[in-house]
Amino acid sequence: MYKSDIKVLDCTVRDGGLMNKWQFTDEFVRSVYESCAEAGIDYMEIGYKSSERAFDRKEVGPWKFCDEKDIRRIIGKGEPKVKLSALCDIGRIDFEDIPKKSDSAISLMRVACYVHQMDKAIELAHHCLDKGYEVSINLMAVSKVNEMELDQALADLSKSRVQMVYVVDSFGSMYCESVEHLVKKYKEALPGKEIGIHAHNNMQLAMSNTITSLMNGATMLDATLLGMGRGAGNCPIEILIAFLKNPKYRLLPLLQSIQEHVLPWNRKIDWGYHVPYLITGAMNEHPRSAMSVMDHPEKKDDFVSFMKSMHDYELLE
Amino acid sequence: MYKSDIKVLDCTVRDGGLMNKWQFTDEFVRSVYESCAEAGIDYMEIGYKSSERAFDRKEVGPWKFCDEKDIRRIIGKGEPKVKLSALCDIGRIDFEDIPKKSDSAISLMRVACYVHQMDKAIELAHHCLDKGYEVSINLMAVSKVNEMELDQALADLSKSRVQMVYVVDSFGSMYCESVEHLVKKYKEALPGKEIGIHAHNNMQLAMSNTITSLMNGATMLDATLLGMGRGAGNCPIEILIAFLKNPKYRLLPLLQSIQEHVLPWNRKIDWGYHVPYLITGAMNEHPRSAMSVMDHPEKKDDFVSFMKSMHDYELLE
Repeated sequence: MYKSDIKVLDCTVRDGGLMNKWQFTDEFVRSVYESCAEAGIDYMEIGYKSSERAFDRKEVGPWKFCDEKDIRRIIGKGEPKVKLSALCDIGRIDFEDIPKKSDSAISLMRVACYVHQMDKAIELAHHCLDKGYEVSINLMAVSKVNEMELDQALADLSKSRVQMVYVVDSFGSMYCESVEHLVKKYKEALPGKEIGIHAHNNMQLAMSNTITSLMNGATMLDATLLGMGRGAGNCPIEILIAFLKNPKYRLLPLLQSIQEHVLPWNRKIDWGYHVPYLITGAMNEHPRSAMSVMDHPEKKDDFVSFMKSMHDYELLE
Repeated sequence: MYKSDIKVLDCTVRDGGLMNKWQFTDEFVRSVYESCAEAGIDYMEIGYKSSERAFDRKEVGPWKFCDEKDIRRIIGKGEPKVKLSALCDIGRIDFEDIPKKSDSAISLMRVACYVHQMDKAIELAHHCLDKGYEVSINLMAVSKVNEMELDQALADLSKSRVQMVYVVDSFGSMYCESVEHLVKKYKEALPGKEIGIHAHNNMQLAMSNTITSLMNGATMLDATLLGMGRGAGNCPIEILIAFLKNPKYRLLPLLQSIQEHVLPWNRKIDWGYHVPYLITGAMNEHPRSAMSVMDHPEKKDDFVSFMKSMHDYELLE
């Protein structure tokens, strides 16, 4: 499917880091960076941009903060070979934590918010724009937002200077019909702005929802190496690139990084499709309860007990 | 998505058996049977119907033959609690291997063929119809068939007495657009006949291709417990049932069987999404080369070498 305006964003380190508290070696992060560059990936999300007050460095690795000195240790001097992005969570970052673009290797600041935080998100987004960054707003958990709230949020966004807005299926609970509906709705409500998709794989639909979004006008596509990401993980970038057959991308550098660096993590931590994630996804719930049982070897394979422990599980029974 | 005429067929034992030569314990097969019955699944495919001359019982388990005495050992006497089906491969079964329906617990004979075997498939299908069975024809590897050959095959099928025809994505190489195209084409060419879908998961699209087929008029949906099946496996029945939210189906009995019987196999054999299967799927090739490297622990994770070993890999590079 040839579309000239497609952009693929790799968020392996940022979303995958949710599974290991960003305890990646420099070698891992460098491999993702180099392979994204060689593969022609448009953006690499290297982590979260957070305030020191929000997290303890004894608990989380450097990619929860994305200090410039850490980034430079990975990419060296000069212009990055692939544009870098970082995710800002509303409430976990202050304006003064964000350097001017001229002092940063980061190109794109993505502001993640829930619908009730939209005002704050637009304020932070404008602040980042004024400091010289490209900026997106990623409205999380949209599957839980009612239509009236969403219309209001989109109206606010349409009046903002933000040029990029994401459909985010935080719970991996969306089917192609809802993805199509939302991408079309965002496109219509936000003329001239770029629409992105960030999918999760609870129902093995992350890849197909990403294609559906693309076919309906989304042009920013999030994906990760081997789907590494929270819970059921994300759209696997190697499947997406194999599908796109776009001459600007190459598959082999991604496979190289997966086999050398991502597979070893895959043997240690359980992201990807597992039945507990299906259950939370199909029930349109946050995956935290599924992640909690996945952390207990004696519970993770008892799907029946897990499902019965869910509130209102009879809806799915 | 409520559709009254949906039928789900579980083919765990038949397609999953391709990964372990049908070496299932009776307990396993009985669990699949009981859970399908409790879950309201419409058909359970219990294996292949094959001639004794075609395979050696020292090599393959009983579900490569589906003798009535073996079936009865699992299901007991009387009417089966879920309709049973068996798959017949052209060239590996003779007319005399098929008992009269009145002597068999099987309801549905599915005849699998390649496009050049269509005459033989229709002949065998008519023979099974005359013996009293429901019958389908499953035209395999349709992603490799050119449009003129396919039109001819569909014209032949339209004149036959066969009431059920499957779109079979043998190589897991089909995207939603090709699935939609084919299901619509089959519907148009075969008025009054039932259309089925049998998907493989090489590109994590088995579930979404099954939904796409359903939305375009297919009503027979193949799936397996935890996706157990050849190579990348099939559409996972637990995801499909959670999606359908159809009052005739129940999810919990399927989860019970998965956690007790399918997970132990999943720890021993590698079906499901793995990068070598992505590579054969994206290249529209038979998965045999991927299955071969998956059998070698020292080769299975060297994706780059595997991809480079493929003829014409530059097309995907």
